[in-house]
Amino acid sequence: MTERLYLFDTTLRDGQQTQGVQFSTPEKMAIAKSLDELGIDYIEGGWPGANPTDSEFFHVRPQTRATFTAFGMTKRAGRSAENDDVLAQVMQAETPAVCLVGKTHDFHVTTALGITLEENLENISASVAYLKRENREPLFDAEHFFDGYKANPDYALSCVLAAYEAGARWVVLCDTNGGTLPKEVEAITRAVIDAGIPGDHLGIHTHNDTGNAVANSLAAVDAGARQIQGTLNGLGERCGNANLITIIPTLMLKEPYKSVYEIGVPQEALISLTRVSRQLDDILNRVPTKSAPYVGGSAFVHKAGLHASAILKDPTTYEHIDPALVGNERVVPMSNQAGQSNLRARLQAVGIALEKGDPHLSEILDAVKAREDQGYAYDSAEASFELVARGILGTLPNYFDVERYRVISERRRNAKGRIVVESEAMVTVRYPDGVEKTSFFKNEHPQEMSDDGPVNAIWLALQADLGPYQASIEPVKLTDFKVRITQGGIEAVTRVIIDFTDGEKRWSTVGVSSNIVDASFAALLDALVWKLLDDGVRPA
Amino acid sequence: MTERLYLFDTTLRDGQQTQGVQFSTPEKMAIAKSLDELGIDYIEGGWPGANPTDSEFFHVRPQTRATFTAFGMTKRAGRSAENDDVLAQVMQAETPAVCLVGKTHDFHVTTALGITLEENLENISASVAYLKRENREPLFDAEHFFDGYKANPDYALSCVLAAYEAGARWVVLCDTNGGTLPKEVEAITRAVIDAGIPGDHLGIHTHNDTGNAVANSLAAVDAGARQIQGTLNGLGERCGNANLITIIPTLMLKEPYKSVYEIGVPQEALISLTRVSRQLDDILNRVPTKSAPYVGGSAFVHKAGLHASAILKDPTTYEHIDPALVGNERVVPMSNQAGQSNLRARLQAVGIALEKGDPHLSEILDAVKAREDQGYAYDSAEASFELVARGILGTLPNYFDVERYRVISERRRNAKGRIVVESEAMVTVRYPDGVEKTSFFKNEHPQEMSDDGPVNAIWLALQADLGPYQASIEPVKLTDFKVRITQGGIEAVTRVIIDFTDGEKRWSTVGVSSNIVDASFAALLDALVWKLLDDGVRPA
Repeated sequence: MTERLYLFDTTLRDGQQTQGVQFSTPEKMAIAKSLDELGIDYIEGGWPGANPTDSEFFHVRPQTRATFTAFGMTKRAGRSAENDDVLAQVMQAETPAVCLVGKTHDFHVTTALGITLEENLENISASVAYLKRENREPLFDAEHFFDGYKANPDYALSCVLAAYEAGARWVVLCDTNGGTLPKEVEAITRAVIDAGIPGDHLGIHTHNDTGNAVANSLAAVDAGARQIQGTLNGLGERCGNANLITIIPTLMLKEPYKSVYEIGVPQEALISLTRVSRQLDDILNRVPTKSAPYVGGSAFVHKAGLHASAILKDPTTYEHIDPALVGNERVVPMSNQAGQSNLRARLQAVGIALEKGDPHLSEILDAVKAREDQGYAYDSAEASFELVARGILGTLPNYFDVERYRVISERRRNAKGRIVVESEAMVTVRYPDGVEKTSFFKNEHPQEMSDDGPVNAIWLALQADLGPYQASIEPVKLTDFKVRITQGGIEAVTRVIIDFTDGEKRWSTVGVSSNIVDASFAALLDALVWKLLDDGVRPA
Repeated sequence: MTERLYLFDTTLRDGQQTQGVQFSTPEKMAIAKSLDELGIDYIEGGWPGANPTDSEFFHVRPQTRATFTAFGMTKRAGRSAENDDVLAQVMQAETPAVCLVGKTHDFHVTTALGITLEENLENISASVAYLKRENREPLFDAEHFFDGYKANPDYALSCVLAAYEAGARWVVLCDTNGGTLPKEVEAITRAVIDAGIPGDHLGIHTHNDTGNAVANSLAAVDAGARQIQGTLNGLGERCGNANLITIIPTLMLKEPYKSVYEIGVPQEALISLTRVSRQLDDILNRVPTKSAPYVGGSAFVHKAGLHASAILKDPTTYEHIDPALVGNERVVPMSNQAGQSNLRARLQAVGIALEKGDPHLSEILDAVKAREDQGYAYDSAEASFELVARGILGTLPNYFDVERYRVISERRRNAKGRIVVESEAMVTVRYPDGVEKTSFFKNEHPQEMSDDGPVNAIWLALQADLGPYQASIEPVKLTDFKVRITQGGIEAVTRVIIDFTDGEKRWSTVGVSSNIVDASFAALLDALVWKLLDDGVRPA
């Protein structure tokens, strides 16, 4: 017999409190759709009436299997719930569930609200009872509950009991300031259950201010709570909320949770986890966190030489789960720490099988090390690594040669006397049949500082016409561009790492030069060659 | 009576296993110095003999108050510790402490090593005993200990007991694959103590694969372990190691740890925590994680309207600690009241004294914030900050206007058929008397990839002839050039920070644009203007 554990997502409400985050309505719709497909039980959409975007989203409203929830606060003192205009706007959103935040810390009641402790209790009871009368599923977010309990346990308990007794389906214990540690969360959650609120009516809402948001959520479940609130990728005010992307696979793949609890996420949806996480980063135009548990680009990267050789024998030697279960991938990168077994594993990952002891191995290793000494880094630039290896193995087709490129950036006053910045580029390519072709890109913007620079210009010139290879090259896009000044031998050089996608695959390349344009150019070329190779294109 | 808890840093060893991280020797020296100043007890420098960089660092070796530690592995089967060449290289580093990793999971012994369980026990005992005979403080990293204990508790315990009985000062329980949860860590650590290894000889080494590295470290301490291994900013293989930057303030500021334990970090060093964290990001050219606990740029940002107004009444309403304790800052986006006193202090630092309440303060604050929203960063670019302030105060002379610049980078075959890369630049400057002058720089190198690129070309063109200001400009040199792709409003922009010197003073400027050449150009111009201002030069 498993027990049901519920997941409540607040990406669209608390997640929007993240510094720099402001979702549009279409973005909120896309996120709600992903949450629903994943199997989240409750989707909190925002605070109707608090700002125009939140109100618009509730007007458009997504169609979800999940319980769509509006956030608000308990009525204010000195008026009835029916006559509170702030609460009225929340009710007008007509959601099946409403989650109201209220005070439970005596200091906040008297200092921040400036009302009596009794008035606050009445606000809680009356608001929850009103939701129930209106046939909404009532949730109560007990703000500052853990700090409140430590300051005045009797009063904090009387607040959550008031909500429960008035009919709250869920009383959610919130670590609003994020400073509570797992042991305290567990003990205080137990105290609430002992005081009379059953665990299957208790939720937990944590923040990551001490790096313990996930552990605090698990601690509350260990104590008996049966709802977890969190966000995708741990978005949220300050250091963020509990990361559901981390919690979901832990509950589904790890003991004791796996055997004891059942959540709404079906096993077959778990493999979409990495995609859902990256989708949110795409919407926010953020670079995905490589070190993110389960779904990060580095989460199953084996850089240490000893680890890589064991992984070849059996992946469970250095992996806590199979990365495929969450839609992620194993990566064995090259670095100058790696030995031949690392190299073999890495080659295998890109489809090149070499026997142990193959003399090419030391040749490739030497080449990679020599290039690393010049400032190259192949940890993340796997596509460039593959090209180096294929070059040595003689399995790299010669698709084209670049005879020449030329890029110009210029700042000047235009005819109207305004400053304009423009870049243009030309590239001359020679194909194996001896034909030379030159392609161009020119950009001019009327506004100051608004062109995208020489690297973009050269990329667009390359992509404008790559003759017989155009169909393969067309869908390729740059997704990230990293520049580092580093040491190449005795001189400072520029290392450029560029990430690419064609809408399906993602790959990265590296270029090094004392000239940033030339370093970028090398990385761009590698990306194009890799794409042709991956598509199985034959040299024209 | 407090108990001593020891901190062991492995940023330079396990941290270097992070994808994309490769420290140079000067970088390792700088990090070791910061760790030592912070009060870390053990600094693990790497694995002598494993690669040239690690070996070089042990050759140069930092002078530290902390116990400088070399990493290695237990001797291999079939030879004595004295005759193991890998171990010999570790010993040759002559460090006061040596930390050897060894197997404790039966499956790894037989599968990865391919030796008998008895041979492995002998390897552990003999290696630790050898360290002790050689007067090194012996540490034993019990690899895969938690997984090993779950698979075969008797054998896992016999391994750590062998290390302890052979004289290991510390037996470190490693959650190598990072999949163990806090409850398990606590229970298994207790089992080790029950089996006979005292807690003050036990360490904990965790990874963040389930987002619980910090919680797992605390759970082991709760069970009795007295050494915590971790890294700065949670660097480390895959999802990273336990983050010491998070653990240190938790131990020093949070109960029960604060009252029960004493660590080597003095109270006065705690305020350097934010700086130490950002320094590492600078070395790695990484954008600091805004949501990082304690030290992140968003860790004390109060975006929610309700929170911000309460914070104004009393900061403890929505902060779990005072941000100043860890050298961080409160940010209340809607109120520039708190910002003004900061701003006055910063202006004073560059020689601009403004009275409290001066209306220019909010004007400057607004301008700086608006530019920060576009991607500018003034933390280190003080010269550019001063120019922004002087522009608003009307004390910025107009030395010259740049009417136009043009920079070309070209790659082509020269007359002898060799690839050459060349850059050239021209800049047209108009002086206050209306005179326009154009200066040039052209560079051509016969070798592949050997010119210094468009930014260098434009700098040399500017410096070639700045008319009446030439004497001031002549001695100026670029000493560092940092490029970061960052967020400017909703688009990715390039931020360039350049450091300059004239042989006496040093100053830094910032430029932002979607075009890297234009961003660099803005920073170069700021540097020249600041130098003229600092020299007291009057506009021609």
